Amino acid sequence: MIYRTIYLLIYLLMEVGATMTNRQILFTSRPTGEATAANFTLVEAPVPELADGQVLVQHLYLSLDPYMRGRMNDTKSYAPPQPLNKVMIGGTAGVVVESRHPGFAAGDHVVGMGGWQLYSVVGGSARGALRKVDTSRVPHSAYLGAVGMPGVTAWYGLTRICEAKPGQTISVSAASGAVGSVVGQLAKARACRAVGIAGGTQKCDYVVKELGFDACIDYKQHRDPRSLYGALKAATPDGIDGHFENVGGAVLDAALVRMNDFGRIAVCGMIAGYDGQPVPLNQPSIILTSRLRVEGFIVSEHMDVWPDALAELGTMVATGALKYRETIANGLESAPEAFLGLLRGRNFGKQLVRLA
Amino acid sequence: MIYRTIYLLIYLLMEVGATMTNRQILFTSRPTGEATAANFTLVEAPVPELADGQVLVQHLYLSLDPYMRGRMNDTKSYAPPQPLNKVMIGGTAGVVVESRHPGFAAGDHVVGMGGWQLYSVVGGSARGALRKVDTSRVPHSAYLGAVGMPGVTAWYGLTRICEAKPGQTISVSAASGAVGSVVGQLAKARACRAVGIAGGTQKCDYVVKELGFDACIDYKQHRDPRSLYGALKAATPDGIDGHFENVGGAVLDAALVRMNDFGRIAVCGMIAGYDGQPVPLNQPSIILTSRLRVEGFIVSEHMDVWPDALAELGTMVATGALKYRETIANGLESAPEAFLGLLRGRNFGKQLVRLA
Repeated sequence: MIYRTIYLLIYLLMEVGATMTNRQILFTSRPTGEATAANFTLVEAPVPELADGQVLVQHLYLSLDPYMRGRMNDTKSYAPPQPLNKVMIGGTAGVVVESRHPGFAAGDHVVGMGGWQLYSVVGGSARGALRKVDTSRVPHSAYLGAVGMPGVTAWYGLTRICEAKPGQTISVSAASGAVGSVVGQLAKARACRAVGIAGGTQKCDYVVKELGFDACIDYKQHRDPRSLYGALKAATPDGIDGHFENVGGAVLDAALVRMNDFGRIAVCGMIAGYDGQPVPLNQPSIILTSRLRVEGFIVSEHMDVWPDALAELGTMVATGALKYRETIANGLESAPEAFLGLLRGRNFGKQLVRLA
Repeated sequence: MIYRTIYLLIYLLMEVGATMTNRQILFTSRPTGEATAANFTLVEAPVPELADGQVLVQHLYLSLDPYMRGRMNDTKSYAPPQPLNKVMIGGTAGVVVESRHPGFAAGDHVVGMGGWQLYSVVGGSARGALRKVDTSRVPHSAYLGAVGMPGVTAWYGLTRICEAKPGQTISVSAASGAVGSVVGQLAKARACRAVGIAGGTQKCDYVVKELGFDACIDYKQHRDPRSLYGALKAATPDGIDGHFENVGGAVLDAALVRMNDFGRIAVCGMIAGYDGQPVPLNQPSIILTSRLRVEGFIVSEHMDVWPDALAELGTMVATGALKYRETIANGLESAPEAFLGLLRGRNFGKQLVRLA
């Protein structure tokens, strides 16, 4: 029995100290123009031993988000560029494997910014680094979507910038996506008319029939700006009071013309411009003639709203009032292609990578 | 003596009732492309008799302002289009000739929206139609400029949208103009760095040497966008916290790039786009990456700030702390050409027409 215990101890020590190998995707070259899989490199590395105060997390899900494309450029943006030859940034949902921090114990379900890798070692006290979540009523992966950063993004833009009020019309681009889908459902919960813009019949059907938007415009059916504008006009007979922009380009141009006086535009994403060439706004003078407020934001700079937002979002998901869809790629090695697909709109709802 | 009195009475009745002829400039055709003098027609018409509650005003000055160009188009804007074959809209400073309203007496100095004509008949109780002004410390014409609509426009955009605070950098286009000149001087009074953009050495010299701006960029010396940006960068070493836009186009494009995070842009004018062709904003994605707030406004919709604004502006003009310059055309018939010159930046400071 004593030999068996010693054997087991040695085996465990080997597991933790020696055989635990991390797999990581590094960002190894900046794109010139479109991002490609060649910008990333899969490597293996040992999991380091924990220091006091640190927590070892095994990731179950990696979140893929449009903002990552911005980080790949070496230009001024709202965040420092992703450094070269480091693990690519990303939100993760995981389980604590080992903890040398009193606030965490093995088995805790957590979300954090673990990056594109199987394991991360995190300072348990670092602000916002690691957060325990209750997965009894809300699925673990939802904390990367509707009850996480994308959900709070929707909440902030809708309530704090668009200032949605009952009876108003709210429009949102990328309406079937992780952020857009929440914008429309929160708008409906506030007795607004919710109008989505999405790419493809399937996404539009989902937005209207499953998520309960009042209308959805398939921009792929309206390649011509006049046609897109006509469809948006038909879907917004009373104009638009608040527009939530996830894309930029033609959709924003059309929305601008439909804005009612004193309308608000929350600028959350400009995916169309991420590949280097700026996409102009064709009629900025409408900002003046319609006295609009156009405001860009990034939700991580508004941490004060997270508790309120997460409370509402969590309750809505738990009660089924807030629906969401996920597209899940399997395995770390699938992350680059899944990410590129996201940039091209190939995902449906929240794009995740299952890592365990 | 009695004959002489009767004769005088008859003469006066003839003067008021019969021989008082108004001269008016009507807006008689909408421009296609650039506005021209052919869009206006000078006519004569009798001055109507006053009804109860009305006031007859003789105009001393007509104000010419960029917003008038927008009204000439038959398109959605912040105000209804100028109707065809009616007297062209415009602010006026004048003297009461005759009053059938208890609030006004002959000889009162007033400002109002009398339009492009020598006389106007105004309902004395109509809200905002006619306002008595004290010309003992502030020149009458200043009520059409620094202590009038342009001044309050500057005050509102600077304090309520740009939210200028000590130590910040404020930039303003059309810096020598009626609005821009006040923006910069109010910014200096708030311990900001004030940077102007204007067309020509003479205007830039005036802005810096007479108005006290810290720097002024002559956009005519920087026709290339990179050159303009370089000059703006040199003049704003700490970036721009608040930008007041009177023009649009290349200047706004350059300013956008220089904006600090969380900067504010007050959109007051888009003169470059008034002639029909929209002028695009080249890099709207900066609104997101720098988390900017861009807001259009028209000061007549914010009447609540006028008392505070006029109090500060009036005191500053009376004490010499707020300087301004006027370009004065003579005679009603000169108004169309003076207005077209204003649209081309040929004026220097506030453009007025002297009518008496």
